[in-house]
Amino acid sequence: MVTTGAPFGLVREDLDRLELALVETARAEHPILGPLLSTVLPGSGKRLRPALALLVGRLGTFRPEPMLHMATGVELLHAASLVHDDVVDESELRRGARTLFTRVGNAVAVLVGDYLFAQSAAQCVATNDIRVIGLFAETLASMCQGQIEEASRGNTPHLSVTREAYLHTIWGKTASLFVLACEGSAILAGLDEPRVRAMRRYGDRMGLAFQIVDDVLDFVGDESKLGKQVGSDLRQGTITLPVICLRETMPTGEFRAAFEDDDPDGLVRLVRESSAIDRSYAEAERLLQEARDALALVPAGEPRDVLENLTRYVVDRRV
Amino acid sequence: MVTTGAPFGLVREDLDRLELALVETARAEHPILGPLLSTVLPGSGKRLRPALALLVGRLGTFRPEPMLHMATGVELLHAASLVHDDVVDESELRRGARTLFTRVGNAVAVLVGDYLFAQSAAQCVATNDIRVIGLFAETLASMCQGQIEEASRGNTPHLSVTREAYLHTIWGKTASLFVLACEGSAILAGLDEPRVRAMRRYGDRMGLAFQIVDDVLDFVGDESKLGKQVGSDLRQGTITLPVICLRETMPTGEFRAAFEDDDPDGLVRLVRESSAIDRSYAEAERLLQEARDALALVPAGEPRDVLENLTRYVVDRRV
Repeated sequence: MVTTGAPFGLVREDLDRLELALVETARAEHPILGPLLSTVLPGSGKRLRPALALLVGRLGTFRPEPMLHMATGVELLHAASLVHDDVVDESELRRGARTLFTRVGNAVAVLVGDYLFAQSAAQCVATNDIRVIGLFAETLASMCQGQIEEASRGNTPHLSVTREAYLHTIWGKTASLFVLACEGSAILAGLDEPRVRAMRRYGDRMGLAFQIVDDVLDFVGDESKLGKQVGSDLRQGTITLPVICLRETMPTGEFRAAFEDDDPDGLVRLVRESSAIDRSYAEAERLLQEARDALALVPAGEPRDVLENLTRYVVDRRV
Repeated sequence: MVTTGAPFGLVREDLDRLELALVETARAEHPILGPLLSTVLPGSGKRLRPALALLVGRLGTFRPEPMLHMATGVELLHAASLVHDDVVDESELRRGARTLFTRVGNAVAVLVGDYLFAQSAAQCVATNDIRVIGLFAETLASMCQGQIEEASRGNTPHLSVTREAYLHTIWGKTASLFVLACEGSAILAGLDEPRVRAMRRYGDRMGLAFQIVDDVLDFVGDESKLGKQVGSDLRQGTITLPVICLRETMPTGEFRAAFEDDDPDGLVRLVRESSAIDRSYAEAERLLQEARDALALVPAGEPRDVLENLTRYVVDRRV
């Protein structure tokens, strides 16, 4: 059912069960909600986050029921955040399709996002592990902080956003959810504390690298695969690592002038043709090496091999 | 610190501690969030919901720490839902002041609401009681369902909204949170199951009655106290019990004609001058009697007396 090239290996059947759980959530008895949910939940997305949860779960004692709740909770939290992201950014397209925001308007999209947060909470509570549930609440707060940081940059974000501020923001908006998937599952699988910390670190680095590659693809990706215009982040004033790398390698006056030209196409071309893309990929590679190093602490075997393969998938992907 | 005339009696000191907890939440280390939160959290609101939680907590073994988390979680959930309500309704004023939505715009208001949901989740998790946390997740879902029902009524809601549909909607959007406050606290206080159920029933009936009175006050209240125009629900197409009562006592053709006139002031006057107001108050009174009956099941004493007094405050209040 999952339409992705990611090498999920031994958790493919678990992911089929996840799809059924998502269909079940969308089949809310509610006459209005059901049809809306069924357009945002089943059959869409790469399912990378729940796959990570399920794989980490197989590093220890795999308990199918709580693990499936964990994976479903993570994916529902991801879905909720996408719905609200589109509201916040007033995005018309996602993965080439019209967003819920565009189809049903601001009000209902806000409420559907809230409902998905609620369902995500219910799934995490169903793991019945108070530490995991606490992690869920922390993650929710981190994700909001990351989004608020991004939405509240000043008028000249291209000058003020440092590399550290960028990493802080993407930690909140993206990596925190990868951490929930990996650390939460490590706890549920009964791994010992050093291994739980290692899986937290793996999720953290995977999440940061994933977002950096996302931000690079926004500049160099194939528009038909991205389902949106190249350079859309920059066009809407969101400063990501490639722009920060460009600033680091250009004389300040020249960089400032490029932004004052009010020529977004030219700016996008400037980023694409500079070393900023390679430098951003190098940062992602550095983080992914740290993710692989963290894997050295957990038992060898097929789950660990797949988790290692996924570090390469993250940077090789084209969409 | 609390600016209300509600007779909260013996939990007044607990409520002062609640205010401190809210100030603490608003003092988020985050430079952007803190100032925004401090405009929606401290010093505003009646604190009725946390007061109910604290009073019910005193019917059994009062454990100050989890009870304060419970009360704070309930109030944060209320604050979150108000922030999103204003986004959904595009409301300019709340309690006479400009809403967060008006001050900071749609995007940031959506995210601040999400952040408040997250903080509410964190407080409920901090009660460390998995049953209470499960109830929190259910409540979040019910509140969203109620809001979605209200936001998705058809083009002729004045004809299609039945009394049952109205009660279902206000159960979700209002009473479910009263249930969380009362049932959650009853669980934390270690009451036995029949008493937990009685407190659930008390919260349920109090919540429904509170919303009905709110909906009546929207027609008959004092504009300066309401902080908004009289009849604002009807003007924005929200059908509440007074309109349903009017429809039940008017010939269908006449009722339909009144709505087709496109004269909101006339409609509001029609409701105010009909028996619909008295009939709505009677429904609230009936529910509050059921709330008082539920109290008969819990131990007599000051907490129960205050809970009983609050059933009268709910219907006597003018704002």
